[in-house]
Amino acid sequence: MTDYVAPLPDMQFVLKEIAGLDAIAKLPGFEDATPELVDQVLTEAGKFAAGVLAPLNRVGDEEGSRLENGAVVTPKGFREAYGAFAEGGWNSVPFEAEWGGQGLPWSVAIVLQEMWSSANMSFALCPLLSQGAIEALQRHGSPEQKATYLPKLISGEWTGTMNLTEPQAGSDVGALRTRAVKEGDHYRITGQKIFITYGEQDFSENIVHLVLARVQGAPAGTKGISLFIVPKFLPKPDGSLGARNDLRCLSLEHKLGIKASPTCVMAYGETDGGAIGFLVGEEQRGMEYMFTMMNNARLSVGVEGLAIAERALQQARSYARQRVQSRAVDAKGGEPSTIIHHPDVRRMLMTMRALVEAMRALTYLNAAELDRAKRATDEAARTKALLRAELLTPLSKAWSTDRGVDVASLNIQVHGGLGFIESTGAAQHLRDARIAPIYEGTNGIQAIDLVGRKLGRDQGQAMTALIEEMRADAKALGAESDKDLAAIAASLVAAIELLAGTTQWIVERLKSGLPQVLAGAMPYLELAGLTVGGWLLARQARAARRQLAAGTSDHGYLSAKIATALFYGTNLLPRAHGFAAAVTAGADSTLRLAPDQL
Amino acid sequence: MTDYVAPLPDMQFVLKEIAGLDAIAKLPGFEDATPELVDQVLTEAGKFAAGVLAPLNRVGDEEGSRLENGAVVTPKGFREAYGAFAEGGWNSVPFEAEWGGQGLPWSVAIVLQEMWSSANMSFALCPLLSQGAIEALQRHGSPEQKATYLPKLISGEWTGTMNLTEPQAGSDVGALRTRAVKEGDHYRITGQKIFITYGEQDFSENIVHLVLARVQGAPAGTKGISLFIVPKFLPKPDGSLGARNDLRCLSLEHKLGIKASPTCVMAYGETDGGAIGFLVGEEQRGMEYMFTMMNNARLSVGVEGLAIAERALQQARSYARQRVQSRAVDAKGGEPSTIIHHPDVRRMLMTMRALVEAMRALTYLNAAELDRAKRATDEAARTKALLRAELLTPLSKAWSTDRGVDVASLNIQVHGGLGFIESTGAAQHLRDARIAPIYEGTNGIQAIDLVGRKLGRDQGQAMTALIEEMRADAKALGAESDKDLAAIAASLVAAIELLAGTTQWIVERLKSGLPQVLAGAMPYLELAGLTVGGWLLARQARAARRQLAAGTSDHGYLSAKIATALFYGTNLLPRAHGFAAAVTAGADSTLRLAPDQL
Repeated sequence: MTDYVAPLPDMQFVLKEIAGLDAIAKLPGFEDATPELVDQVLTEAGKFAAGVLAPLNRVGDEEGSRLENGAVVTPKGFREAYGAFAEGGWNSVPFEAEWGGQGLPWSVAIVLQEMWSSANMSFALCPLLSQGAIEALQRHGSPEQKATYLPKLISGEWTGTMNLTEPQAGSDVGALRTRAVKEGDHYRITGQKIFITYGEQDFSENIVHLVLARVQGAPAGTKGISLFIVPKFLPKPDGSLGARNDLRCLSLEHKLGIKASPTCVMAYGETDGGAIGFLVGEEQRGMEYMFTMMNNARLSVGVEGLAIAERALQQARSYARQRVQSRAVDAKGGEPSTIIHHPDVRRMLMTMRALVEAMRALTYLNAAELDRAKRATDEAARTKALLRAELLTPLSKAWSTDRGVDVASLNIQVHGGLGFIESTGAAQHLRDARIAPIYEGTNGIQAIDLVGRKLGRDQGQAMTALIEEMRADAKALGAESDKDLAAIAASLVAAIELLAGTTQWIVERLKSGLPQVLAGAMPYLELAGLTVGGWLLARQARAARRQLAAGTSDHGYLSAKIATALFYGTNLLPRAHGFAAAVTAGADSTLRLAPDQL
Repeated sequence: MTDYVAPLPDMQFVLKEIAGLDAIAKLPGFEDATPELVDQVLTEAGKFAAGVLAPLNRVGDEEGSRLENGAVVTPKGFREAYGAFAEGGWNSVPFEAEWGGQGLPWSVAIVLQEMWSSANMSFALCPLLSQGAIEALQRHGSPEQKATYLPKLISGEWTGTMNLTEPQAGSDVGALRTRAVKEGDHYRITGQKIFITYGEQDFSENIVHLVLARVQGAPAGTKGISLFIVPKFLPKPDGSLGARNDLRCLSLEHKLGIKASPTCVMAYGETDGGAIGFLVGEEQRGMEYMFTMMNNARLSVGVEGLAIAERALQQARSYARQRVQSRAVDAKGGEPSTIIHHPDVRRMLMTMRALVEAMRALTYLNAAELDRAKRATDEAARTKALLRAELLTPLSKAWSTDRGVDVASLNIQVHGGLGFIESTGAAQHLRDARIAPIYEGTNGIQAIDLVGRKLGRDQGQAMTALIEEMRADAKALGAESDKDLAAIAASLVAAIELLAGTTQWIVERLKSGLPQVLAGAMPYLELAGLTVGGWLLARQARAARRQLAAGTSDHGYLSAKIATALFYGTNLLPRAHGFAAAVTAGADSTLRLAPDQL
């Protein structure tokens, strides 16, 4: 097992060159995000992640959380770490200053999320779920609800959860059965929820559950769903804790990974005629409210993919630098070499590195678009940024989490037999990473969102605008008098044209051939993620070349950035052909066998 | 969790159409392998795998093996299952009749190996390791050694192990330090070995360890290594057990998967001046003897990839048939559907199915070539078969085990959130599958073997012969008046030509540019495995079409075979472009960053 070190140089480079943080910091409301402050925040966060959270990652996996007499006991050290996290103000970074938040851009908050999840994904899930609850209340809560809950949630004094899933209602949230019955100024909530992350814990004195339920008489399906605040303890008017609400954690799941994060089966209204819940916004608009949070939540899960991959890369690199085994093929002399000299190990490390840097650029850009969507000064710019953010979100979520699994698996492979031994820690990263393609909408659902909703709602216009921008960048790159950049450009152009062709193919069939389109949705998402990743690495390579020419910067970092982009362009980007073929030529055979023949 | 059912129809089809079992059964020594006998063996083995081994798979994972006072306690039921396995004669299938074996072809034994590993990979490792010891002694043991050890090992009364790895000597076996000192008619062995599968167990009264060690004064590296029999109990001349030898299991590893299989740290000669060992063959020929077993052992590990994938496919299909979630896009009426109706789930199931059927064909063909290499009646045919078998072995091992991991991961994805819960059993398959790309030579080493040894030793002639055969088959397929077969042929031709081009590129650079060649070794192996898999599915599709035209066979099975081959051809085979580009254009960027920059 290795220590974690926050990769500050790459984080800063991507924030500047891809996210455009300098311009974001000039938008109204983000003026505090000066380069000095951001520097300081990232540096301190890196220390907290490395010093407090990372050392708890293994013990968290080994001990896991457990349920004792209805109370969750988190692993040794987690409770204290949470206290220090809240105390340090780390919970409040992106939230509204009015309620105690620091009002920093998502572009900055996402970098911290990467650090927390790299250091300790199980721990990081708790503030991540609180974030969802905070956003829901910031946007849709009543003034009284905001005043009651937001300061405590933003400070981290209380935590929040999201209660969507039920045994029969997973991807199909609309199938939920939890009921709500109006009773005066509140509702009575009855039902069972599963997969509730940090549904119970020993971090905080209160937990604010946001629960989706159906009010009696409401229509079936997603349309009839409302959103409720169901606190573990009912707050009194003075803010102190009142009665214990009728809800409890029935059991914890035994999972493949993220074992320190308690995944709860929650029962509402078992004994008392229904847990007391407070309606958020209006009845039957619960799903709409959930959707407004979904971009951030899905992006955050994508960042988990990036984060685990970064941690796995650091571990693989460290191991490859010290493990001696066989003489390298190009070594002088007869002594055995560290395995980082072996070409196939270098290929694995370069693959990991290239994917990590592409994921980082994709997710940070996505966060920046959310910032611009909220704070750009003219409406057209806000609309454009929102469309771009929503287009990128399924890529951030699905492509990054699938690549997170790939990179964690490569880390095991670099370790050889030791990678299979749990105490090495490499296996944990794979086990932890494996949840991210599943929760917050499976990656298959992300692909359906991409083709059905994101291409469907504007007949591919937002994607076409992205493609045009990528084409222009590739053209400019190809015009540079640099062989590496030209090679990257050539590979990028090929991928972009395949993406353009498949986009058109899909848009033409969205009405007449939806099953065929959906059969190719995942290969299309793979193609889009791969291409956008290549584009963003190409832009970074060009910026690195420019900085190198200016002669002012870190030569080692910048030349490595160009080499990494070149590796991505020549080794990974040509995979675009395979995905494109599967989109346009594959659907018929995918659907050839009837379900009962499969 | 689902039951396991041996996929007898596909096994039989591949044995007949790809392995060519009918012709193998006519070779001298294999006359017993009549269709009737093979049918009966497979049917009975399927019953044993499903009825005895499969039900122990979960409990084996949950309990694991443990060490108590130096003795290994295997999970509940394993010891009895091993007794029934040996009692049923399942241990003796492919071994020489002279020593109690049944003398059946590897082509048949490999099918049983698939069943055992599908049902319970942890259990199946014990007979797999015995197999290695048996083969070593069949080929290289003295008459006395054969008489002493083979009947007990073949009956399963005793088990065998292979002791290669030491902490500093993993992939680099030549770095081992275990010493051997001659003492009369035996040697004294001193050293520590790690990762010894079933190095200790409660299945059998004796364990025959085959140990690699260096005789005092022998040269460093692989050249100086000798092979020794080091039995746990020294057999007396009458075959009964004598003194306890100076060896013991120090500890068991805590692993990601195959938890029921005890992975032992073994100490030799701790207390008694060296464990007593008996030299196999001659001194300093140990590595050569190991290599003669390696084809079978690597093929067997490849079959583990196939086996776990088959089990995962069965589970995913079963779950997708019963899980109801959301209305299918092409459903009539408003009711929600089982998820097997959703296009993306069908894509996942088809991917799993296509890969399983390609792996099965590849590994069974590889086994058949080993049979022909041993028993074909003229030497030219034997040589040709051996070269083909040796060429296919790294593909069987690496491509199948990597695809095994992919398919096990897809099974989790089909299950959604439930896939991440251990009691579902899907996670275990991924954890178990993850070892196979590592042991018996990491997949990176398989790739080096493929390009360095298998292409290097004859300047690609064996590969070119395979390519010519594939070209001829693709041409014949393209000439058929059937749209599906023509589509498969078109895709196959493209992949074959990419393989031909990269083969030539590599062969031209083997002398001058070995680092570049090795940097692309794994993408080349991916390309070769993908293409050979596509070829073998194409051959099956053609055979299925022929059988359908003859009108005598199972229409459902045969038309599904064609659909599966078409899916592979249109959805998977186009990935060949990406791998080919990485081989020929990727190496420079892979090696661009010096190890200290990585």
